[in-house]
Amino acid sequence: MVYNIDKLFDAVKNKGHVCVGLDTCIDYVPASERKSTQNNAETVLAYNKVLIDATLDISACYKVQIAYYEEMGIEGLKAYSETLKYIRAKGCLVIADIKRGDIADTASRYVKAHFSGDFEADFVTISPYMGMDSVEPWIKEAQASGKGAFVLMRTSNPGMRDFQYITINNEQLTEKKDLITMSRRRVYNVVGDKLSSLAVQYCGECGYGLFGAVVGCTEKEEASVIRNNYSNLFFLIPGYGAQGGGAKDAALLLRKGNGGVVNASRSIIAAWKTVNSEQLTVKNEFAAEEARKAAIKMRDEIRNEI
Amino acid sequence: MVYNIDKLFDAVKNKGHVCVGLDTCIDYVPASERKSTQNNAETVLAYNKVLIDATLDISACYKVQIAYYEEMGIEGLKAYSETLKYIRAKGCLVIADIKRGDIADTASRYVKAHFSGDFEADFVTISPYMGMDSVEPWIKEAQASGKGAFVLMRTSNPGMRDFQYITINNEQLTEKKDLITMSRRRVYNVVGDKLSSLAVQYCGECGYGLFGAVVGCTEKEEASVIRNNYSNLFFLIPGYGAQGGGAKDAALLLRKGNGGVVNASRSIIAAWKTVNSEQLTVKNEFAAEEARKAAIKMRDEIRNEI
Repeated sequence: MVYNIDKLFDAVKNKGHVCVGLDTCIDYVPASERKSTQNNAETVLAYNKVLIDATLDISACYKVQIAYYEEMGIEGLKAYSETLKYIRAKGCLVIADIKRGDIADTASRYVKAHFSGDFEADFVTISPYMGMDSVEPWIKEAQASGKGAFVLMRTSNPGMRDFQYITINNEQLTEKKDLITMSRRRVYNVVGDKLSSLAVQYCGECGYGLFGAVVGCTEKEEASVIRNNYSNLFFLIPGYGAQGGGAKDAALLLRKGNGGVVNASRSIIAAWKTVNSEQLTVKNEFAAEEARKAAIKMRDEIRNEI
Repeated sequence: MVYNIDKLFDAVKNKGHVCVGLDTCIDYVPASERKSTQNNAETVLAYNKVLIDATLDISACYKVQIAYYEEMGIEGLKAYSETLKYIRAKGCLVIADIKRGDIADTASRYVKAHFSGDFEADFVTISPYMGMDSVEPWIKEAQASGKGAFVLMRTSNPGMRDFQYITINNEQLTEKKDLITMSRRRVYNVVGDKLSSLAVQYCGECGYGLFGAVVGCTEKEEASVIRNNYSNLFFLIPGYGAQGGGAKDAALLLRKGNGGVVNASRSIIAAWKTVNSEQLTVKNEFAAEEARKAAIKMRDEIRNEI
């Protein structure tokens, strides 16, 4: 079995750490390409295709944020489905950013929904609040099919301090307590510990667990400690660009030049908006070329920091 | 503005506490009704309609678990959309059990997806792991449109002990610390405190916040304390029936005869399977009648405990 985490590891080695986020809202599509004969979802899909074509050799994988498609209802989800199919048909990996999380029976429905059928992806994102029995149905299937997932651990939004940052009672034991060198242990450490244990059991050739963690690059003072404590977890790293993280911050979450992909969306897929040109006449091809330039710049900036 | 939470309060007063969960998988539909001319999603939708018709005067609201529809892909989501529309057209409230949770920008996409358009519902469920900035876009829209939500607080699955039960460091301050009488404070209390503060600010005529909490009825020893500490939160109560909670347990989470709806799915919508009859010839009408009987029984059992 070649696991997707091994394929992702190789993709990072060959292409770099950029994960292009296709959080494509209609406003990111050049105005001249929004045709009255197409609905918004079809317009977004067409734009996604040119973006993918333009970044395929630079993007280690793509991340598609399903919320941007759910927003457009049934038609939006058709565009979501077609976007995933397009990426996979090109032989590239795609992360479905769905952040699902539910009790075991229900989780197994989500597994079927996102590891097969119309919405089949190579990786998903999972929210851990309900507990590890909401993660287990995913890993059972991942082991059989090679799929993977990234579980929310410490995200990049300001609100992550509300619950992920809660400091835990010292008397509470967790699996890796003795390895943790931080003076304060937080809820996200408990999540990380569970994932790290799981990664020992379900591991790819590359040395990383089939399931990784979402760790934002916005809190650089914690980055090295997190990277050291969870050396068997591959990271999906949000927070780059618009959310304030830089290449140096992201590089702190990488390990031996690999071990993570760094997601950027707006700064790549809407890069054309920052170019000083006549915006109303911009075509998809120009926007795609600007996306490519932005992705290359990001790739090289991160490589220069490792 | 009449808020949905006020409508739900009135529905509980008039009809009782039952929330029928339409977690309808194809196996719950009588075999004789699974027609070769229909896809599974159409078969499920047809079954949902007879279930709704048979329980409309007993069910305070319905809860539709989107995972069961996502599992069937695009066709499944059409059936999901039609199920919501059917319930709302009958003048009844529907909770979209979607457990979404994402950063602010993305959350606002989910808000649009589930508070309008193809998937418009009256209430949604939200996962809080990412923090309150993932809840805020929902409440902003709820205040404008009257919609509501239930945020996961302490769920009913065994795995809820993994993270929701983490005991927190005493030095950590939360808004309602002095009101909490439990010796151990847990992560779910921090979530509850935040929701309770939000409910002070965004409150219906009925005295409950526009946003309530998901609190399972499986841990009865904590129920009274939770009910007392969060008196301004309306509860969506899972865990009844198949998950082990009984009417007495659920009643502990109610307040002055109101303040919560108790969800049951399989025990109602697949009640026909427990009836000793020739299962292969069972029709939707029989299954619907059994669902009605099960819902009435549940309603009365809960009423007898309050």
